[in-house]
Amino acid sequence: METINIKKGERIDDLQINDYHLIQKIDGFCFGIDAVLLSDFARVKKKSRVMDLCTGTGIIPVLMEAKYSPEYIEGLEIQEEYAKMASRSVAMNGLSEKVKITEGDVKKVREHYEKESFDVVTCNPPYMTGKHGLTNQNYEKAIARHEITCTLKDVIEAVSWILKPYGHFFMVHRPFRLAEIIYQLKEHKLEPKRIRFVYPYVDKEPNMVLIDSVKWGNQRVTVEPPLIVYNKDGSYTGKIYEIYGEMKK
Amino acid sequence: METINIKKGERIDDLQINDYHLIQKIDGFCFGIDAVLLSDFARVKKKSRVMDLCTGTGIIPVLMEAKYSPEYIEGLEIQEEYAKMASRSVAMNGLSEKVKITEGDVKKVREHYEKESFDVVTCNPPYMTGKHGLTNQNYEKAIARHEITCTLKDVIEAVSWILKPYGHFFMVHRPFRLAEIIYQLKEHKLEPKRIRFVYPYVDKEPNMVLIDSVKWGNQRVTVEPPLIVYNKDGSYTGKIYEIYGEMKK
Repeated sequence: METINIKKGERIDDLQINDYHLIQKIDGFCFGIDAVLLSDFARVKKKSRVMDLCTGTGIIPVLMEAKYSPEYIEGLEIQEEYAKMASRSVAMNGLSEKVKITEGDVKKVREHYEKESFDVVTCNPPYMTGKHGLTNQNYEKAIARHEITCTLKDVIEAVSWILKPYGHFFMVHRPFRLAEIIYQLKEHKLEPKRIRFVYPYVDKEPNMVLIDSVKWGNQRVTVEPPLIVYNKDGSYTGKIYEIYGEMKK
Repeated sequence: METINIKKGERIDDLQINDYHLIQKIDGFCFGIDAVLLSDFARVKKKSRVMDLCTGTGIIPVLMEAKYSPEYIEGLEIQEEYAKMASRSVAMNGLSEKVKITEGDVKKVREHYEKESFDVVTCNPPYMTGKHGLTNQNYEKAIARHEITCTLKDVIEAVSWILKPYGHFFMVHRPFRLAEIIYQLKEHKLEPKRIRFVYPYVDKEPNMVLIDSVKWGNQRVTVEPPLIVYNKDGSYTGKIYEIYGEMKK
């Protein structure tokens, strides 16, 4: 681990994989189980070029590098402060040669990236529309959670531009938006091929959904076995230990 | 129960609810757990007019009458022999005044029904496209299972014609067609509002999906807790006993 200065109000978290660490803001948006489950759900080949949209702290590029070691990973983040912090995380882990963080707008990928220039796209976008939930008083956090700077449609339009034919798009989102997500994906020739619902408990509604879509894929989707996070007694299930255990290799 | 003559090759099954019975063909398509779960999943008011498309043996109209006792139920069936058999089941249960079985084609509802003339539509359509699974050698059975006489799109077009604004459409289908189903529903202004996946076991992929859509509904869907059919030891789960127990009232 290279030496790095962290700023006031920041902390460094151990990612428990490859001895990688991540800088996060103590009072800002911190990564959650969503990012961990998304990187577990993705399937990435070594020769792939990967783009992570709405990368925030850069957690997904760092986890993807640790798990799949693809050829190149780029993370796009609209907030300057988060983009810079993510870049420092990348440098701290000695990954600057293959992981790049770019400050930029998902809505402008056509101007900045060539068409069909990535094999894989990942995204953990803001989940909430204006109508759902209250806007966070902390504006930086609100951008990560609410569709302020980009909507679901903006994300999917960006993906349909930068993703190669037959490339995969892996996304984590909230089940209450499932119908809208599937509709928008299909409208943009991104065919859902694998869906995994994450249920906090076996008798509760799912609170996350993971979707693997293929550009120009054919019409048939596998809904995977339920991923249940907690046992009745509140302890993690074996499956979750397996996923987090992966991170301790 | 009125006396009724059954034909050679037919049998009478006790539906375990309201002392209702159903005529089925010994070698033909017999109703399964799908029909039972669909009638449990539906929510129907007493004053509703209900249409069941692709009604087959008439199992759904009979179960819906038993569970919800709506004002009027009609079942539409394209195969003459099944339509007649379903009519005899209705008569046998003394329901001819409020349940009507019509021989007819889902693709022609515009010719035979007024626009927006039903409050609720149900359907347990053929699940398989030409590409998926082998066509059954028994042609009658094949019509119930494969999209020979009507496709998913035909069903959804019919629903969008006969269903009143804000009326509910309840359907059971296979999860592998989920993306296509959601896309077609939304294309026809039928908004998925509730989705329930049916998992044979807690660690297996779901093999059924129940979808409640509302005509002109707003965009937000609830994915319900998983409905698991069997315990690890192969016995039915409590939830399934509850649903079938309902039938023994």
